[in-house]
Amino acid sequence: MHRRELTVRTSGRGFLELTKEVASVVHDSGLADGLCNVFVPHTSASLLAGENWDSSVRRDLEAFMSRLVQDGDPRYEHDTEGPDDMPAHIRTMLTHSSIVIPVAAGELQLGTWQGIYLWEHRTTPHERRVLLTLW
Amino acid sequence: MHRRELTVRTSGRGFLELTKEVASVVHDSGLADGLCNVFVPHTSASLLAGENWDSSVRRDLEAFMSRLVQDGDPRYEHDTEGPDDMPAHIRTMLTHSSIVIPVAAGELQLGTWQGIYLWEHRTTPHERRVLLTLW
Amino acid sequence: MHRRELTVRTSGRGFLELTKEVASVVHDSGLADGLCNVFVPHTSASLLAGENWDSSVRRDLEAFMSRLVQDGDPRYEHDTEGPDDMPAHIRTMLTHSSIVIPVAAGELQLGTWQGIYLWEHRTTPHERRVLLTLW
Repeated sequence: MHRRELTVRTSGRGFLELTKEVASVVHDSGLADGLCNVFVPHTSASLLAGENWDSSVRRDLEAFMSRLVQDGDPRYEHDTEGPDDMPAHIRTMLTHSSIVIPVAAGELQLGTWQGIYLWEHRTTPHERRVLLTLW
Repeated sequence: MHRRELTVRTSGRGFLELTKEVASVVHDSGLADGLCNVFVPHTSASLLAGENWDSSVRRDLEAFMSRLVQDGDPRYEHDTEGPDDMPAHIRTMLTHSSIVIPVAAGELQLGTWQGIYLWEHRTTPHERRVLLTLW
Repeated sequence: MHRRELTVRTSGRGFLELTKEVASVVHDSGLADGLCNVFVPHTSASLLAGENWDSSVRRDLEAFMSRLVQDGDPRYEHDTEGPDDMPAHIRTMLTHSSIVIPVAAGELQLGTWQGIYLWEHRTTPHERRVLLTLW
């Protein structure tokens, strides 16, 4: 079992692709066949396994999410850290904190157009940790 | 590999925190480094890895979900068990049946404000099983 | 560790139950106790662990999702492959690319009414891969 922690700096709300970083950890580990768990220990950032060819897809995903979960909705009771505080928790709930990806012949078995993204849901930059475990 | 089944009694729709129970199973197992899979074998209850400091967050998550997935919507074909029957299946679909959490030095690697919750989606109390597997 | 790849042909948007196929792979593997990761390497098809008794549940899940994520919404920037292109990516984001299911005594520990489904989000038939890993 190999473990590795990535620390990334987000530039506010949006996607940060991690596919190369995760693949690099897989290569460094020497793992031939197995699995890789990607885990985000945050409640206002999450994971997406999504289309990584056309950036318009991510813009549309973000726009859809912004319409579904409105910032500053007066019905939110929790707004300690601002109008994007509660929406960030809801967006995390609707997406993923862990994804388990197969590894074969030393390569992540993602689809041809599938990438792994950290999704920052807060509007301001944050430092985020991503915990990778391979076995 | 260690397995353990928790059985909990919910008091109707809402969140039941399992963080301490899961941590306790990890401690009892003697596992130092590895992973813990949390699995809910139900289709009207699910898992959340969410903010566990301020209870207003859970009230807002529940309120958001209630607005998104309306009870008793006449467009539902399936209502055998009442107005909350189909919404419970939709809520489960939108959240999680399994979450895989890293364990290091005998501790679940959850974030500082991150807890594990069972989310009961039915309005009446139910007995729910939670399957933990550590390796 | 056992790995197996299923290739299925969908008939357009909707659910394809995989419970028997996955159980069959578990049986063939000889695994008594462990876990099974189900992974979909696509960005417009995903997984559901949902009610498998009454087919009206799946019709309602599909109808809910169609109302939530509208085909042909003019606000989508990405529509290269048609009005169901971007909705398929959003639906995948809101559901699951990986699910980890416990195995005990050679049987998947799904709930009594819980089945594993591939959810095709495109309106036209597609060939889809499902990667199973048991350990």
